[in-house]
Amino acid sequence: MLDLPFLPFCIFLGGLGFICVAFVSAWCQHWRGGFALDGSLQMFNWHPVLMVTGMVVLYGAAALVYRLPPAWSGPKLPWKVLHGALTLAAFSLAVLGLVAVFRFHNNHGTPNMYSLHSWLGLATVLLFSCQVGAAPAPPHPGSLLHARRPHLPSLQWLAGFSAFLLPWAPAWLRALYKPVHVFFGSTILMLSVASCVSGINEKLFFSLKNGTMDYKCLPAEAVFANTLGLLIILFGVLVLGALARPSWKRPDADSPDSCQVPAPLR
Amino acid sequence: MLDLPFLPFCIFLGGLGFICVAFVSAWCQHWRGGFALDGSLQMFNWHPVLMVTGMVVLYGAAALVYRLPPAWSGPKLPWKVLHGALTLAAFSLAVLGLVAVFRFHNNHGTPNMYSLHSWLGLATVLLFSCQVGAAPAPPHPGSLLHARRPHLPSLQWLAGFSAFLLPWAPAWLRALYKPVHVFFGSTILMLSVASCVSGINEKLFFSLKNGTMDYKCLPAEAVFANTLGLLIILFGVLVLGALARPSWKRPDADSPDSCQVPAPLR
Repeated sequence: MLDLPFLPFCIFLGGLGFICVAFVSAWCQHWRGGFALDGSLQMFNWHPVLMVTGMVVLYGAAALVYRLPPAWSGPKLPWKVLHGALTLAAFSLAVLGLVAVFRFHNNHGTPNMYSLHSWLGLATVLLFSCQVGAAPAPPHPGSLLHARRPHLPSLQWLAGFSAFLLPWAPAWLRALYKPVHVFFGSTILMLSVASCVSGINEKLFFSLKNGTMDYKCLPAEAVFANTLGLLIILFGVLVLGALARPSWKRPDADSPDSCQVPAPLR
Repeated sequence: MLDLPFLPFCIFLGGLGFICVAFVSAWCQHWRGGFALDGSLQMFNWHPVLMVTGMVVLYGAAALVYRLPPAWSGPKLPWKVLHGALTLAAFSLAVLGLVAVFRFHNNHGTPNMYSLHSWLGLATVLLFSCQVGAAPAPPHPGSLLHARRPHLPSLQWLAGFSAFLLPWAPAWLRALYKPVHVFFGSTILMLSVASCVSGINEKLFFSLKNGTMDYKCLPAEAVFANTLGLLIILFGVLVLGALARPSWKRPDADSPDSCQVPAPLR
């Protein structure tokens, strides 16, 4: 493949991520009535914005931290902290995004968790919680249809951090866990993108009917939100492509891990 | 990671693919009125069945051909032919699946190509056409809204086969093209899965309203089709995971390519 340098690609990807966040915000602000925190339809609008920002853009940025050339030399710990901070920020936004949609549904007597979009979306965040270590638990035991709101069990959070970020985890455990972590990392991004696509599609069918121009007539809002969907897909595909590119991977053997003590000179 | 043998995994994956096809067929047969070729709603039902069978299951099988241990030794040509035949079968089913939905829409005066699902789905098949070499062209020049039906331009077909399958393509061209082919191969599978998820979600919102139990009440059909969506996602994730697993990759250096003449013994 062509020897594409990482940094210009990274700048392009950052711009694309920014455009995704700007598009989803503009869609909700301009066509869907803006934002509020009162359980109304304007509260729902936080859901797409927070999910795209957290589960796609920040998550994608976190995944690419170790591909930055400055991360290739020197200790890993600062990059691990950056990776952890970005995934934590992504996860926090995702949880707030779930709170927004659950609160809106509950205020309007709409059941939660019936559409394939909602099943996939919650499964993605739950899978993410296994990576980060903190999960929104199933909101109401025994009833997914009338769920209230997610919360954070601290046990999983501590377990995740202890196993992967903190320096006392044994090397064999890290070596065993790393490919699993990398595989599920890419998987979660794929599932996030699929969730966003199905969510945008669903929202447009809901919104563009009574009192507005029908979705099938392809009004400006539909073109705009469909384009947002394609941009999200492009962002996800480019992140996954960058992760898979061998020449952009950090040569692990040459860089000391944060838990490793440098070997004495002979 | 655990040293999982490929063949049991492959058998499990084959079973999962079969279950996906069985589920989508059963959904359309049992809840959506079965199949027909008369442009009616029963003709539409071919669309999900052909897309899941072609763009997910057969496509996934084609992607994994080179991971089969018997393909690791001996000449590549038979496996290339199998890979080509499976992708051609997948592509043919995808084109027929597009014909089914375009014919249904046109017979009912419904515009084509307005939803994000349709944009993503057609983009996926067009991208696939660049891989296989045969594309359903934009159905009506200048009007995506009132498209008639796809057709196959033979030029792209010949170009794709000449560049990759036939033995006279130069080695440098193959070496340049192979990572591109592999990257787009995985990308197309991801996009296919995302298209299926958004399509199932959209179809359930369309179907489960007037005269039936609403989608939000989660009737048996909704649980069944949502489960189908999750099974398709699981299939796609497992195929992509298998493709990414280093120990399951064919050691290319040890196997003669179909275009290579064995070096003379010294």
